[in-house]
Amino acid sequence: MKTLFILLDGVGDRPSQILNGLTPLQAARIPFLNALARDGSNGLMDPFSPGIPVGSDTGHLSILGYDPYKYYPGRGPFEALGAGIKLKPGDVAFRCNLATVNDENRVVDRRAGRISSEEAAELVESLLEVKEVDGVEILLKHTVEHRCVLVLRNGVSDKVSDVDPHKDDVDLLWPRPIDSSREAVRTSEVLTKLLKRYRMILEKNPINVRRREKGLQPANMLLPRGAGKMPELPSLSSRYGLKSAVVAGAALYKGVCSAVGMDVVEAPGATGTLNTDLNSKIKTAFGALKSYDFIFLHIKGADTAAHDKDPLTKASFLERVDAALKKNFEPPSDEFIVCITGDHTTSSLTGEHRGDPVPVLIWGHGVRVDSVNRFNEVDAARGAIGRIRGLDLMNILMDLMNRTEKFGE
Amino acid sequence: MKTLFILLDGVGDRPSQILNGLTPLQAARIPFLNALARDGSNGLMDPFSPGIPVGSDTGHLSILGYDPYKYYPGRGPFEALGAGIKLKPGDVAFRCNLATVNDENRVVDRRAGRISSEEAAELVESLLEVKEVDGVEILLKHTVEHRCVLVLRNGVSDKVSDVDPHKDDVDLLWPRPIDSSREAVRTSEVLTKLLKRYRMILEKNPINVRRREKGLQPANMLLPRGAGKMPELPSLSSRYGLKSAVVAGAALYKGVCSAVGMDVVEAPGATGTLNTDLNSKIKTAFGALKSYDFIFLHIKGADTAAHDKDPLTKASFLERVDAALKKNFEPPSDEFIVCITGDHTTSSLTGEHRGDPVPVLIWGHGVRVDSVNRFNEVDAARGAIGRIRGLDLMNILMDLMNRTEKFGE
Repeated sequence: MKTLFILLDGVGDRPSQILNGLTPLQAARIPFLNALARDGSNGLMDPFSPGIPVGSDTGHLSILGYDPYKYYPGRGPFEALGAGIKLKPGDVAFRCNLATVNDENRVVDRRAGRISSEEAAELVESLLEVKEVDGVEILLKHTVEHRCVLVLRNGVSDKVSDVDPHKDDVDLLWPRPIDSSREAVRTSEVLTKLLKRYRMILEKNPINVRRREKGLQPANMLLPRGAGKMPELPSLSSRYGLKSAVVAGAALYKGVCSAVGMDVVEAPGATGTLNTDLNSKIKTAFGALKSYDFIFLHIKGADTAAHDKDPLTKASFLERVDAALKKNFEPPSDEFIVCITGDHTTSSLTGEHRGDPVPVLIWGHGVRVDSVNRFNEVDAARGAIGRIRGLDLMNILMDLMNRTEKFGE
Repeated sequence: MKTLFILLDGVGDRPSQILNGLTPLQAARIPFLNALARDGSNGLMDPFSPGIPVGSDTGHLSILGYDPYKYYPGRGPFEALGAGIKLKPGDVAFRCNLATVNDENRVVDRRAGRISSEEAAELVESLLEVKEVDGVEILLKHTVEHRCVLVLRNGVSDKVSDVDPHKDDVDLLWPRPIDSSREAVRTSEVLTKLLKRYRMILEKNPINVRRREKGLQPANMLLPRGAGKMPELPSLSSRYGLKSAVVAGAALYKGVCSAVGMDVVEAPGATGTLNTDLNSKIKTAFGALKSYDFIFLHIKGADTAAHDKDPLTKASFLERVDAALKKNFEPPSDEFIVCITGDHTTSSLTGEHRGDPVPVLIWGHGVRVDSVNRFNEVDAARGAIGRIRGLDLMNILMDLMNRTEKFGE
């Protein structure tokens, strides 16, 4: 038995006036998805719990069956995963801002005047000369705008306080150990030394010299926050004896899936944006099912459109998904299941993640067929699945694959 | 964004033969509520958990988002709230019965021959001369029939055993400390002294003299039980940054809502009974939405009728609610949500709270519209909300108001 899990990021929504009071899923012409709904089981899913909006990180953990209360290590490690850094056990990751501080180390602007991605990337590049401090290996990677990720490797602790004061016009907070372990003290000391070296490099960088000349805020300091270690996540294969892989555009999703032991299968043209090559991704996913039991296919675009408060684009992206799915739908065998759902609702009204449930559709071998015949947030509620929680979904899928173990006899 | 939360106490029910196998909600002509259902989201809610009947106290705690397992302090403090006593931190409250005991302190009748409210009130009045015992302040208030509330204030403990043996023809149980703290010992001693003084006052009271002459049971003892302190409930405003108020007739609901930091807005003619002024309450609630984000409007009558095993009166009360709602429905703005539900099912068959789920209806801005077009226990089950728990409702409403915080990023 094989399963294709298609995660449509941010697929749930709220009704929009521009869509005549419908959600993008309700308004979109998605005949193929509707046919799967008609021939499958439907329901609603709270990615974490009713009314609680989740992030992409906590949402994916939960839906993959890992309770974020237990396994979520804070944002640092997930930011590192998203940046494509392969974390090793024991690595401590921080989210960082390039910021402007004055001579008294007062934070003038914690986003350095919202510095451009181009300038920030060059500044971060100049910091890469620092590869090690007192035996601690340093990894640094720029992501977007003023943001970057710092990873400390080798005998370090995540029990170290935020340097970022989280607001402007206050002093930066030098790192302090937040427990009494030798590693925490050492990590604080190393981080302090590192930040001072970064400061010296940044001050002299020609970009900052130019920015000062133009009256712009120099990005002369790095403000780490959210220290965390990636927890040891029991792998999907240890849980279910499963050979699994992910097909995704953006690094974060590949990272999360890698962390639970999935292989990464690259699809040409997968960008994690609205202009991704959907045919390529779906074709790659079906192709990979020849050698894997379980493929997790992540499709980002609907979320992006909703963040832009653009329900029309969200609906038309979903129509493209529908067409690409129809075109490339090639079940590897009769014993095949498709699950289609989202990781959260992204409201086109506010452009934010919200806590409304998302539709979940399961189609294929052994699946009870209900009377729902459209794939959307409202029709799904009448289906045979009812309203479930994200944490239960993998058990439901693995059970359909006859891979769950009996509790009791 | 503003929200009106209308709680119809005991609105859920079971089918009655006198209503041709329908519930009061199904049988009632409620066109306005049905129109809200048609244009909104519908579902079922288990106030606490499926099949578990809740009291007004635990039901309200749960529906307001406070897990009663964590926050319910027993009946004493809620009885005090219901009697309109403002509890201070550290106060210990007891429910009490006026009872008949014999000369050997054997409980002859723990309800003193179901003494009338009038006589009981006069007897309790005579006890108010005892204002203090050994530095402990004494508050006592009659509620209804043989029932009253006792509050001890100043250095007291709730670790003290019930005096009420919970049945007749057994000895009353003098108060004992149930932990080894100095406060518990002191509280037991003070309570024992207090009850002996009450006994002396009650024995001499002319009402009891008259009752004995008539061959009635004298109400010559007070039997406290259910000692508890009001827990510190995190306020709704600290949880959601919300300005909120309650409109209610009965003291208990004002008390619970005050305890979670709501203001109390008085509606002229609100009695908490079947003859309450519904127009006044609803008009007051809508008026208050001009200065508050969230109004909790409590309407009691349906519960009262069901406790009287009178489904016809329950249905006609719901029709009056429908008419008053239609007449006074004035949304403060376009960004407005109404939630209508109950705190529990009250069965017109047995006159008791039961554990069946109640319908929940959410109407307004950003709400997914489903195909349900009637507000009742059965149609609601097909709606876009599915079946939720009371503890999740506030998160759902706050999320619709875009006031929940994202978990993760």
